[in-house]
Amino acid sequence: MGVLVFIMAIIPSSPDRTMHLLRAEMPGPTVGKLVPKAKDTAKILYLIYIVMTILQIAILYLGGMPLFDSIVLSFGSAGTGGFGIKADSIASYSVFSQWVIAVFMFLFGINFNLFYLAITKKFKAMLKSEELWTYTAISVVSAAAIAINIYPIYKNAAVSMRFAAFQVSSIMTTTGYATADFNSWPDFSRGILLILMFIGGCAGSTAGGLKVSRIVILEKIMKRELRRMLHPRSVKAIRFEGKTVDSSTLNGVSIYFAIYMCCVGVLFLIINFEPFDLITNFTAVATCFNNVGPGFGLVGPAGNFSAFSPLAKIVLSVAMLLGRLEIYPLIIAATPSTWIKRK
Amino acid sequence: MGVLVFIMAIIPSSPDRTMHLLRAEMPGPTVGKLVPKAKDTAKILYLIYIVMTILQIAILYLGGMPLFDSIVLSFGSAGTGGFGIKADSIASYSVFSQWVIAVFMFLFGINFNLFYLAITKKFKAMLKSEELWTYTAISVVSAAAIAINIYPIYKNAAVSMRFAAFQVSSIMTTTGYATADFNSWPDFSRGILLILMFIGGCAGSTAGGLKVSRIVILEKIMKRELRRMLHPRSVKAIRFEGKTVDSSTLNGVSIYFAIYMCCVGVLFLIINFEPFDLITNFTAVATCFNNVGPGFGLVGPAGNFSAFSPLAKIVLSVAMLLGRLEIYPLIIAATPSTWIKRK
Repeated sequence: MGVLVFIMAIIPSSPDRTMHLLRAEMPGPTVGKLVPKAKDTAKILYLIYIVMTILQIAILYLGGMPLFDSIVLSFGSAGTGGFGIKADSIASYSVFSQWVIAVFMFLFGINFNLFYLAITKKFKAMLKSEELWTYTAISVVSAAAIAINIYPIYKNAAVSMRFAAFQVSSIMTTTGYATADFNSWPDFSRGILLILMFIGGCAGSTAGGLKVSRIVILEKIMKRELRRMLHPRSVKAIRFEGKTVDSSTLNGVSIYFAIYMCCVGVLFLIINFEPFDLITNFTAVATCFNNVGPGFGLVGPAGNFSAFSPLAKIVLSVAMLLGRLEIYPLIIAATPSTWIKRK
Repeated sequence: MGVLVFIMAIIPSSPDRTMHLLRAEMPGPTVGKLVPKAKDTAKILYLIYIVMTILQIAILYLGGMPLFDSIVLSFGSAGTGGFGIKADSIASYSVFSQWVIAVFMFLFGINFNLFYLAITKKFKAMLKSEELWTYTAISVVSAAAIAINIYPIYKNAAVSMRFAAFQVSSIMTTTGYATADFNSWPDFSRGILLILMFIGGCAGSTAGGLKVSRIVILEKIMKRELRRMLHPRSVKAIRFEGKTVDSSTLNGVSIYFAIYMCCVGVLFLIINFEPFDLITNFTAVATCFNNVGPGFGLVGPAGNFSAFSPLAKIVLSVAMLLGRLEIYPLIIAATPSTWIKRK
C-alpha cells in the first residue's frame, strides 16, 4: 500500500516503469497480484481500507467517543500514522475504545491480500498464511511477556494486559499510539518493544518496519544455510506461503536486511552527533526509520523531538521517508537517470 | 587463525572433513591458501604470529616494562584476548608502552596473509589490499572523531589522541584493553566504539567481530543491489581484492550477516531478562559475542559481569564461543550427525 499504488490507480502510465517502481515500493516480497490488472488490485485494496476505516469509526462512535475523535483516531490507526488529538494520545479514552483501537491497529497490520481472500470466502487460504500466524504469535507472546513484566507497576492484571496488548499492537504495526508512558516501563519490556519496532507489520499492510514476511523468509534462509554447513551437498528449495521462493527473491531479502541495518547504522552515526544519551539517539533513529513515532528517553511517548538540532530533524525526516518507502524508491527517485527520458 | 588451524597442523585427519570444518572456521571469506598444503599454511601463519609476539615483548621490555608484564601483555594483544595483570588494564603503564600496545593490537588485527606477502617481498600486493585500506581508514577516522570528542575532558591534544587511538585499536581488534574509562566518555564516542565492536578486525587475523572483509563485500553487494534497482538488466560481477567473488560467497556473506544480527537479537532478548538497563544488557551481549571484553554501563572497563545471574553468565559464555568460532562450527559440533561415523 502506499503513495505509488495510489498514483498508479489514478494516473495512466507506461506499464513498464509502473511495475518497476511498484516492485520496489510494494512493502515486502509477497504481495501477489490479486487480479490481472494492477489498477484493479489497487482499487480492491483501497476498498478494503475504506470499509475497515468506516467500521472502526462506527464502532468507536457507538462506544461513546465523539464523532470527530472517532474519525481522527480511525484514520490514525488505518494508516498506522498514530496521529491523535490529545496530548496523552489514547490514555484518556475509555477502556472499550482502547481495546477497539488495539484490535484495529492489529488488523491494519495484516496483509490486505488476506482480507481479500476472506471476502472471497477462501478462509482456508487465509488461515494457512504463515505470515499471519507468525505475526499473531509474535504479538501474543510479546504482549504476554510485557503484561507479566509490568504487572508489579499497575498491580492489576486487566490493566497490565490492556496496556501491554495496546502497546504491542501500536508499536508492531508502527502506529505509535500510547495508553501508558511505556518509556517508564522496565527495560525488559522496552527491549521487546524496540525489537518489535524493527519487525513491523505484515507485507501488504499499512505498517512499516522490516515486515514479518521478510523475517520469516530470513529465518528460513538462515536455517537452510546452517543445514548446508552440515550437509554441503543438500539442496532444498525454500517455500513460503505454499510457494517456492526463487533465489533472486531470497537474495533480495537478505540484501534488503543488510541495507536496512546499514541505514540504521549510518543514521545512528549521524544522529549521535546530538548531545543526548545513546538510548535517545538510537531510538530516535529506530522510531523514525520504522515510522513508529515515539521512542525511549527524550523521544519517549511523553517527550518529543524538539530538542534535536535542525540538521538532525532533517536527517530524521529523510529517515522516515526512507523507511516508509522501503529505501529503494527514494534512491531511484533521487537518481538523475530516473528523470531523464530515454529514447 | 584458531583452534582448528592448530588441530589441523598437528593431527593428521581425513582431508575431506578437515577442509570442510576449516572453511567454516576460517574467519572471513578471503583467506586464500598461501601454499598448496593446508598444514604448511598453518605453519607459516603460526610463525608470523610467534615472531610478532616476540618482537612486541622485546620492544615493551626495552621500553622499560618488567619482563613478566611484557610477556603477558604481548600474549594478550597477539591473541586479541585483552588479558592484563593490573586492575586498571593498561592505564598505569608508560605512554611509550601504551603506544606500542596500540600499534601491535592494530597489527594483530590485520590479515596475516598480508604479512606473508610482505615477507615474500610482494609489498605492492599488500598495499593493494582493499581490506587493509578500509581497516586503516575506519581506524583513523574513528580515532580522530573520538579524539576531538573527548578533547574537552582531557584538555590535552596528545592525551586525547593517545586515549582515542588506543581505544579504537583495542575495541576494533576486539582486544579489550583500556587506558581510560571510556564508559564515561560522551555518548558520541561510545556510539562509535559500539559500532567498531561489530565491525571487528580483518579476516585471517586473530580479531573477532564481523570482520572488515565482510563489511567491504556487504557494501559492494548493497551498492550493486541499488544499481540493479535503477538498471534491472545490468549485470556486474563483484570484485574483491582483485578477484571476482562468486555468487555463493556473496550469498554466504549476506546470510552470515543476517545470522549474526539474529544471534545478537536472540541473545539480547535472553540477557534482557536481567534487571539491568538496556545499555548494560545490550553491550554485554555485543562485547561477549564480538569477543571484546568490556562494554558500557555496569560491564564497562571499570566494571565487570559479576552482577549477572548464573544463567546469564552461561548464555554469555556460549555467546563468546559462538562469536569466536563464527557461529557455524559450534552448530556443526553440536549436531549429533557430526559425531556419527558415516560408512
